[in-house]
Amino acid sequence: MPTPTERASGWIAAFGNALAGADISLAISMFQDDCYWRDLVSFTWNVKTMEGPSAIADMLQANLPSTNPTGWSIVDRVIEVGEVVEAWFDFETAVSRGRGHLRLKGDKCWTLLTTMLELKGFEEHAGTRREKGVEHRATKGRKTWLECASEEQSTLGYSRQPYCVIIGGGQGGIILGARLKRLGVPTIILEKNARAGDSWRKRYKSLVLHDPVWYDHLPYLPFPDDWPVFTPKDRMGDWLEIYTKVMQLDYWGLAECTAAKYDLDKREWSVTVHRDYGGDLVLRPKQLVFATGSVGPPKEIHLPGVDLFQGDCYHSSAYISGKKYAGKHCVVIGASNSAHDVCTDLWEHDADVTMIQRSPTTVVKSETLMELGFASLYSEEALAQGITVERADLLAASIPFRLMAGIQIPLSETIARRDADLYARLKKAGFLVDWGEDGSGLTMKAYRKASGYYIDVGGSELIAEGKIKVRSGVEVTEVRQQSVILSDRSELPAELIVCATGYRHMTAAVAKIISPDVAERIGPNWGYGSDTSGDPGPWFGELRNMWKPLAYPALWFHGGNLANSRQYSLYVALQIKARMEGIPTPVYE
Amino acid sequence: MPTPTERASGWIAAFGNALAGADISLAISMFQDDCYWRDLVSFTWNVKTMEGPSAIADMLQANLPSTNPTGWSIVDRVIEVGEVVEAWFDFETAVSRGRGHLRLKGDKCWTLLTTMLELKGFEEHAGTRREKGVEHRATKGRKTWLECASEEQSTLGYSRQPYCVIIGGGQGGIILGARLKRLGVPTIILEKNARAGDSWRKRYKSLVLHDPVWYDHLPYLPFPDDWPVFTPKDRMGDWLEIYTKVMQLDYWGLAECTAAKYDLDKREWSVTVHRDYGGDLVLRPKQLVFATGSVGPPKEIHLPGVDLFQGDCYHSSAYISGKKYAGKHCVVIGASNSAHDVCTDLWEHDADVTMIQRSPTTVVKSETLMELGFASLYSEEALAQGITVERADLLAASIPFRLMAGIQIPLSETIARRDADLYARLKKAGFLVDWGEDGSGLTMKAYRKASGYYIDVGGSELIAEGKIKVRSGVEVTEVRQQSVILSDRSELPAELIVCATGYRHMTAAVAKIISPDVAERIGPNWGYGSDTSGDPGPWFGELRNMWKPLAYPALWFHGGNLANSRQYSLYVALQIKARMEGIPTPVYE
Repeated sequence: MPTPTERASGWIAAFGNALAGADISLAISMFQDDCYWRDLVSFTWNVKTMEGPSAIADMLQANLPSTNPTGWSIVDRVIEVGEVVEAWFDFETAVSRGRGHLRLKGDKCWTLLTTMLELKGFEEHAGTRREKGVEHRATKGRKTWLECASEEQSTLGYSRQPYCVIIGGGQGGIILGARLKRLGVPTIILEKNARAGDSWRKRYKSLVLHDPVWYDHLPYLPFPDDWPVFTPKDRMGDWLEIYTKVMQLDYWGLAECTAAKYDLDKREWSVTVHRDYGGDLVLRPKQLVFATGSVGPPKEIHLPGVDLFQGDCYHSSAYISGKKYAGKHCVVIGASNSAHDVCTDLWEHDADVTMIQRSPTTVVKSETLMELGFASLYSEEALAQGITVERADLLAASIPFRLMAGIQIPLSETIARRDADLYARLKKAGFLVDWGEDGSGLTMKAYRKASGYYIDVGGSELIAEGKIKVRSGVEVTEVRQQSVILSDRSELPAELIVCATGYRHMTAAVAKIISPDVAERIGPNWGYGSDTSGDPGPWFGELRNMWKPLAYPALWFHGGNLANSRQYSLYVALQIKARMEGIPTPVYE
Repeated sequence: MPTPTERASGWIAAFGNALAGADISLAISMFQDDCYWRDLVSFTWNVKTMEGPSAIADMLQANLPSTNPTGWSIVDRVIEVGEVVEAWFDFETAVSRGRGHLRLKGDKCWTLLTTMLELKGFEEHAGTRREKGVEHRATKGRKTWLECASEEQSTLGYSRQPYCVIIGGGQGGIILGARLKRLGVPTIILEKNARAGDSWRKRYKSLVLHDPVWYDHLPYLPFPDDWPVFTPKDRMGDWLEIYTKVMQLDYWGLAECTAAKYDLDKREWSVTVHRDYGGDLVLRPKQLVFATGSVGPPKEIHLPGVDLFQGDCYHSSAYISGKKYAGKHCVVIGASNSAHDVCTDLWEHDADVTMIQRSPTTVVKSETLMELGFASLYSEEALAQGITVERADLLAASIPFRLMAGIQIPLSETIARRDADLYARLKKAGFLVDWGEDGSGLTMKAYRKASGYYIDVGGSELIAEGKIKVRSGVEVTEVRQQSVILSDRSELPAELIVCATGYRHMTAAVAKIISPDVAERIGPNWGYGSDTSGDPGPWFGELRNMWKPLAYPALWFHGGNLANSRQYSLYVALQIKARMEGIPTPVYE
């Protein structure tokens, strides 16, 4: 009986041989029928999951010759979980080094993950490859680091064009900028706010990250080990600003991209930049990245009669604090994270608050999510077991979307049982809780439509206790001078209306900056085609248009939460770097 | 035949038992005659080496009862190097947890290192002890992180007094400030420059750190892994400024301490602070730390006739760049690091440069030092072998000063052979090279007098080639309008004189700020009593007055290079924290 290590080593060696011999039928015979190969850039120059042997065969047919993979070898400890053997492996392609993860059932592969780590000859100058920093020889006319850095900064965008421009200097743009800097891709980040981190600083005063620190690290510069579990938004803002400086990014604040147009002949963008200081100018990069929001711009809704409203009315992204609303009637439209946070903050400031819950919400207590959702991958315990952030990210990536909902359903059931008391009390208070159409819960809602859920950090208790009032299953149909009318014809007094109505797709920014035609050609982003509410089919099996080539040249979307931005920025950066260096990048669609 | 692990485990268990039974004779019988016990705070509340069994017995007699050590256990892999078994161990005292290192010859101890890691009940809030960052419960009137941080900053030094004031906001003050912040000791750092890092920024333009990055890490926030081997001074300045922000230090720029006086009755300092903005004020801390320079203020020398000199004349600490001295006659007095760097920079700017070497210099090529001096502890190779910075620091600390010169002598001989060609060419150029009075070389000169050596980063080649001229074994006896007269009566034309004459003891700052009496009572710092030039006896066995209680209450010196500051700041911080918390700290002298 071979050991798990022998089984994994045997499989990977045989698989490597099959690919080396270009024997695709042999290679696919090593997969079970229910199988998945997820590739992040290394084979497909795409973010792509092949489902089933025939999809795998098609991909190999198209891309095996150019990929030319070699050097397959198991690294680290092989583990056995029930009937599944799990192993990490390294491999190379013609142009890159990769890291992969394998799950075997019996002697056949169930899931395979292949990811690109670095391009050969274009490795980051880190660790043993770090630069010396100084020439230990007296040389006339040599420049200091400060002189070189100042010169680079003062010429990029003027006498030298950046290879890449990133629109949006929030976490996504900053993190991708850091990856590109490490890879030597001249990049300018355009941000309409003054300082890096302002997109966090300008949000409502009480905002604290809902994800824990272990999940939120930026690449290259982890948070110090005394960083709090949940980062307050101003501290996050400061960290992003510091990060931008440490990474020496070319970050242009008070610089807004007003238009961008691609010249198909010159294969070059012209990017019009409006700046509060230094005048407007046009940049001419080869690649353009939209990182204009973790999801997109605010989703405003139409409120008939709002022009006559005598109170304040704005989107939750403009909400700062409940300080001036003590004793006032406040109506918050929406029932996801922001709506709960705004309602809680208003209650804390002695306002009279009603939440208008238009559709059911998936609610999970933060403590519960930490223990059941994060602990195995992102926690002190995971770290103690050698699951670094990089490893946790790859483990998370190793689950194909097709299997993900199935894994989440029993987890949601466990959560529902565990916190049954809270859910019963919420129901009694008139609040509608759901677990998604297929019962797969919070994580899947996040992937499918990036809305419709609340990580409970205290708001649910206020609702259960009636301190935040709830009107469920209704819409606001009309706004009057001092009230709102709901779809059940009831009237609520209102001196403040906050629309916590979420955010639009990032393609809305493309429509505005490039053109509606291009936006339509590309299609929406986020969602993976689950054919559930807010995420229409057909099945994509990957998040739509995120971190991968689009149906338009030299254009990219980057974003998501801190963890998404951290992990997938690597693949966006490698795709851009390869193009800059003229490495062939045959994209497998 | 017991294995090394069995030998180490057996020894540590028996030693623990002997101490638990207060059987001092048994305990000292476990040491060989030629033995050393170095303690960093855990047993002695001091930085102290006991040499020989009787010194160890005396210490145990005095401090064993209050220390009450327990829980001795070997951690990690035990190694055998020649006849010596080396092991790491953990232990506890009544009030702290400690980490130690042991060297056995046969079944007896040769060297023992005991160090304090943390005070029980006052551990840093890191890792599993990190703070949550937010209360997951709606609460009226709660304050945000930003509000709390702003309030703390605006009250400390005004309505609330700091427990500790650090004079000097260079690397030493900043690093110690970070340690104290982690331990919850309210501390203000006073810096006469505007911004953290200015002490590096203001130095000469071409300055690059002579020590490699692996040796230079600050605690808590290591340099990113693409940091260059040798840090340019402006980048170091920026890093210190960033570090100060990340660590949320109470750092007062443009704030100079002009006087300090201790009230023996109130057990409190009054520290007069002159500020460029916000007015002068008096702080009343319980503890005062001088961190006014890695060694001390510049050492100015008397140059007869300098008042009539028509050129520029200043200390090397005021030197910025050779730009304005092209084609001019420049005389640099001194032959250590700064002198070489200034001469090199002047040559690079086409000046005519003569170095006045008053006494011989220990020269080691940077590459050679990296390979023979640093590589085993501070390098990528050491890291790959599990020697983290913390571990390397303890290994370095485990060598008692009594043995250090003996270890360095053969190393110096190896270096002399390896780079014999360079030394021969320097000699031919009239440059005097030495290896210290006992042949122990560069490291020991650094410890003994913090001067008299050069880590060659290119200057020696210029001297060997005659591009920098040298006059050796002479002094400047007189300065004339356009020349200097040397002690051999020769005359050199001069339009610039740079005194690269080193730095004074930090006690010079005490004399100025507190009083000459107190400075005299304390005595000088640095040097360990080796009875060599610049380091008079008697033997101390530790660096004088550094990081340890002084002959004056509530007063401390902190400083040294980045590595010293990193490592010993822990012990200064623990000593101060213990006093703040009222933990008994019986100092063994």
